[in-house]
Amino acid sequence: MHLQISSTQNKTVKRLIQLQEKSRNRKKDGVFIIEGLRELQLAIKGNYQIQSLYYCEQLISFEKLEALNISVKEIFQLSLEVYQKIAYRGSTEGVIAIAHTKNHDLAELTFQQKNLLLLIAEAPEKPGNIGAILRTADAAKVDAVFIANPKTDLYNPNIIRSSVGCVFTNQIATGSTQEIIDFLKEKKINFYAATLQNSNIYTNEDFTQPTAIVVGTEADGLSEQWRKESTQNIYIPMQGEIDSMNVSVAAGILIYEAKRQRGF
Amino acid sequence: MHLQISSTQNKTVKRLIQLQEKSRNRKKDGVFIIEGLRELQLAIKGNYQIQSLYYCEQLISFEKLEALNISVKEIFQLSLEVYQKIAYRGSTEGVIAIAHTKNHDLAELTFQQKNLLLLIAEAPEKPGNIGAILRTADAAKVDAVFIANPKTDLYNPNIIRSSVGCVFTNQIATGSTQEIIDFLKEKKINFYAATLQNSNIYTNEDFTQPTAIVVGTEADGLSEQWRKESTQNIYIPMQGEIDSMNVSVAAGILIYEAKRQRGF
Repeated sequence: MHLQISSTQNKTVKRLIQLQEKSRNRKKDGVFIIEGLRELQLAIKGNYQIQSLYYCEQLISFEKLEALNISVKEIFQLSLEVYQKIAYRGSTEGVIAIAHTKNHDLAELTFQQKNLLLLIAEAPEKPGNIGAILRTADAAKVDAVFIANPKTDLYNPNIIRSSVGCVFTNQIATGSTQEIIDFLKEKKINFYAATLQNSNIYTNEDFTQPTAIVVGTEADGLSEQWRKESTQNIYIPMQGEIDSMNVSVAAGILIYEAKRQRGF
Repeated sequence: MHLQISSTQNKTVKRLIQLQEKSRNRKKDGVFIIEGLRELQLAIKGNYQIQSLYYCEQLISFEKLEALNISVKEIFQLSLEVYQKIAYRGSTEGVIAIAHTKNHDLAELTFQQKNLLLLIAEAPEKPGNIGAILRTADAAKVDAVFIANPKTDLYNPNIIRSSVGCVFTNQIATGSTQEIIDFLKEKKINFYAATLQNSNIYTNEDFTQPTAIVVGTEADGLSEQWRKESTQNIYIPMQGEIDSMNVSVAAGILIYEAKRQRGF
């Protein structure tokens, strides 16, 4: 029998809501919220440690959770009312977990192969864009995603959701732009900054050697450091009225050009 | 001197809000709302007819609106309070217009060249994805964008906003899947359906002839009709944990492969 919670005034319920709403609360405790069975499965596969589990019997059977085959300190059963109060944007999946965040320092990175393909986004803000970038990174099976000068907490529920769990399937590192440039140089990885200044058409570059693709924000582009220190600046030809593309689309076009050159 | 509106209870104010909120109201009157100077400029350039103009003196000078050089039946000056009530998501650009919608029938399409490149999205729903697709279409300067079996009103304020005005810079046609397939066949345009079934890697196809790229929704993919009648089905290799990419990213990768083959 699991602990039952049927009051929305319960202390545990309040904590779950606080963890969802404020990155400050997530950072303080080093934990975050996972919602949905698929997301939970991907997090477990990605070696995230689950602290506690919350489920709603009316929405999901406990057998499905047992099949996850994990040891969890605490399991709570939520009434439908309580679940609906906590669940983000009216999800009806019936399961929520608290998990420990990972350490995303550059020093934690490990690589399975030598001819690296990396995707770097500087200061991305919109969770939807970050989520779409992580989905592309998963699909392309890049060796790591770097977030330079991060502005948005990686464990923001909107990122988890819009990445459809790819925040758990990718190896992700965060650091300052300088730290990441130093890392690339030390590892002798060519890096290509997507920018219009002093740049070549992206298809003219050779991405078959160890390569990092670097994209900036739609509003400000990449910082000078990337543009000055890159192996080569690259651009995607734009021929319409507006010279701006969604950043996750641009990242997808560049990464898949590298994939094409490498024969997938 | 323009008509001044300083009450949020004003009839005109209520109409503007209704037009923003409900596609039903837009369709009934054949008009929609444009917000922002840049969007307005693009709509005028795209031959949209502006019916009336609303501006807030505290946020934009009338000279900027005069520079648009358009004849408008009615111009209203809004108090800051009224403007803020109408303005979508707290925009501070200070100008709103009512414009006439266009006719998006297939029969309205005109082409400047013969070797067409078309982008077709079936039943896209999320305004953010539709906006990103329209931005890519603008950047790639495709000859037209088709929305097959549309589910979301093209003049939804979220589409206008997320397209950063590219809803006005593209030639857009809507129709049923059958109508669009008939159109493509009659014009002898090769069309490539993005789907995993019976499909080839996208980079192995020749997109240098008259070409349409067809993408479906993330949830349901393309309908059987597209998959069965296409010149060839194509897929983007995905090698991660999740075999799903954001639809606007997938469209971008495919369209820019066609651009690459065509030498931009």
